[in-house]
Amino acid sequence: MDDVTAAFDLLSRGAEEILLVEDLLTKLKTGKPLRIKAGFDPTAPDLHLGHTVLLNKMRQFQELGHEVIFLIGDFTGMIGDPSGKNITRPPLTREDVEENAITYRKQIFKVLHPEKTKIMMNSQWMDQLSALDLIKLAATHTVARMLERDDFHKRYSSGQSIAIHEFLYPLMQGYDSVAMHADVELGGTDQKFNLLMGRELQKHVGQSPQVVITMPLLLGLDGVKKMSKSLNNYIGIDESPQEIFGKVMSISDETMWTYFELVSFRPMTEIHRWREEIDQGLNPRDIKFRLAEELVERFHDHTAAKQAHENFVQQFQQGVIPTDLAEAHLKVGEQGLVIANIIKSAGLTASTSEALRMIQQGAVKVDGERVNDKDLVFTKGQEFVLQVGKRRFAKVILN
Amino acid sequence: MDDVTAAFDLLSRGAEEILLVEDLLTKLKTGKPLRIKAGFDPTAPDLHLGHTVLLNKMRQFQELGHEVIFLIGDFTGMIGDPSGKNITRPPLTREDVEENAITYRKQIFKVLHPEKTKIMMNSQWMDQLSALDLIKLAATHTVARMLERDDFHKRYSSGQSIAIHEFLYPLMQGYDSVAMHADVELGGTDQKFNLLMGRELQKHVGQSPQVVITMPLLLGLDGVKKMSKSLNNYIGIDESPQEIFGKVMSISDETMWTYFELVSFRPMTEIHRWREEIDQGLNPRDIKFRLAEELVERFHDHTAAKQAHENFVQQFQQGVIPTDLAEAHLKVGEQGLVIANIIKSAGLTASTSEALRMIQQGAVKVDGERVNDKDLVFTKGQEFVLQVGKRRFAKVILN
Repeated sequence: MDDVTAAFDLLSRGAEEILLVEDLLTKLKTGKPLRIKAGFDPTAPDLHLGHTVLLNKMRQFQELGHEVIFLIGDFTGMIGDPSGKNITRPPLTREDVEENAITYRKQIFKVLHPEKTKIMMNSQWMDQLSALDLIKLAATHTVARMLERDDFHKRYSSGQSIAIHEFLYPLMQGYDSVAMHADVELGGTDQKFNLLMGRELQKHVGQSPQVVITMPLLLGLDGVKKMSKSLNNYIGIDESPQEIFGKVMSISDETMWTYFELVSFRPMTEIHRWREEIDQGLNPRDIKFRLAEELVERFHDHTAAKQAHENFVQQFQQGVIPTDLAEAHLKVGEQGLVIANIIKSAGLTASTSEALRMIQQGAVKVDGERVNDKDLVFTKGQEFVLQVGKRRFAKVILN
Repeated sequence: MDDVTAAFDLLSRGAEEILLVEDLLTKLKTGKPLRIKAGFDPTAPDLHLGHTVLLNKMRQFQELGHEVIFLIGDFTGMIGDPSGKNITRPPLTREDVEENAITYRKQIFKVLHPEKTKIMMNSQWMDQLSALDLIKLAATHTVARMLERDDFHKRYSSGQSIAIHEFLYPLMQGYDSVAMHADVELGGTDQKFNLLMGRELQKHVGQSPQVVITMPLLLGLDGVKKMSKSLNNYIGIDESPQEIFGKVMSISDETMWTYFELVSFRPMTEIHRWREEIDQGLNPRDIKFRLAEELVERFHDHTAAKQAHENFVQQFQQGVIPTDLAEAHLKVGEQGLVIANIIKSAGLTASTSEALRMIQQGAVKVDGERVNDKDLVFTKGQEFVLQVGKRRFAKVILN
């Protein structure tokens, strides 16, 4: 396998679409470092594993020696919602953007090579753009073409309003590619329309059109919906080693393979071999451990990964109580406290009724012993380890 | 009748719509001079009587002491066709615009008071507009609202393309009103949508919204279609006194009344009185003479108007041949020239067959005598006055 084929193989891993494949091959064959663009929102970043699908692809380009640009779309962010209808989206200040860039940096450098990553803000060239320039940009595309974009089409047909400036945003994203002389732009599948704008505008001004690589959206822990904060099916990259490890272990065996393809750095050949091993009888859990460790190591470090693995095995497989328990200091009166109230006050359930349900299901343990009596009372001075379900623990101190 | 009522009466003369009437009354009642805006194309101006409908309305405002601004939309003119599809519409240079402004001046001051007219170019503020400003402007309106505009709606439904920047032009016209703090904007009925943009954008920035006055399009000489160069049913304001006089006299009696309303400065009370006089038996031609004289006087002078009237009467009513005849020097061979060929060669008809038709209709005269013989031949050395129809004359010299 020659260099270009090997590079293409790596870069197309997990990709939904490459437009056009031959353009990418041509660019790779020049042997020159390519300019890789990926755009990110300027609003407060709080990245989860889903976001890293793109970051990983950027990292692969870095490893092949290309120039990777992390572009923060601050220009439009600083506009806010110019229609003034959405008062919950105030314009960002220059300081907000700078601060968000710092938060981004802290998170993205868990995946990207800091010294090989160029962070740019599109206000750098957008602030220079005149109304005249924007008119010329707008003249390159038709209203009908813009209404082909999935979400515009849906909103227009269903009578939902589209403000005219929304038609300008894809053009501006395309213009970023012109200003940056991007060779490749990466984005989610939902960004395809906007990414192609870059291609078209570059052609329009006589630049070689960028290659568009779209990456699929990562499935959430449920294996059904896309990973998102609001669906609470995500792994935050700032979460504790324990949380990340446990969450990875909770995904289905099927979902595990798409995670391997999109968020693991292990070679696909190795991953295929594991799959074969499982077919021959290996427990999928053992392979899932590798993914969990890899991810904890990436977002924390090697020691944390080993420790998280050990904790997990102890806690779930051997029933051993973890050593670094949260402590719940509760005040009790003369009559003492009934078990369900203690569970709720220690924060192990959201409500007393949920606590009662857990007792009924036999899911509550005190110092490792199952509690069956929902009227069990504890009094001042007692200390014990309280466990609810498989993973909720607290050290309870009554005083 | 108080001043405001009298002013309103004059200003609403011939107007198609006033939006809103109460706003106009309120503004008039302040007693302050209002800023009146009317926008004109920056392309080479060659005005005809139809254009003066708007100019007359501007003049009425001037006579009431208001500030009239003749706005040349040079900003977009200097863009040309940014889509690059229409190569026949090259961008205007600053020099082109200046030159066109001079040509405009020469023509409009036949109607407007030079010292009371302010000529402005919208590039004055548009050149300062940033992309950001334009985005904010675009955010004030929706795609659906823009597609309500008649021509956009038709084009979109019939699958004709609309470039996105075309959606920006009405907004920019509206922004002109904001930049100018216009109190009133005048325009043709076909401009209503764009004029209302000004109202909306002014409200958006907290200005008192301009009053929109739309004027109907003047009918052409045919009394059916709107006056236009391309339909050749127009009276150019640079035409000779003879031409203007003759063309006015050619309109129907019915069309005459709309001309009186829209392009005459005679009070409506007077015009209504004339109408009554005709009902009582006066020849409409005598009233049409007054319109013809008024227009010749406006575009030339009093003497020219009187002279044109006299010529017209002589030529058409008394059959007298005009004295300032064009001469046609024609070469003839041994056999001489047949009458139809002479008519065509002298430029009095477009073809020989038309000439033959005119002879057949009894519409051809030689030295005042009707020619009935289509085979009539003239020979070298002969000179005579040739007349075709009522108004086509030539002095023919055969040699």
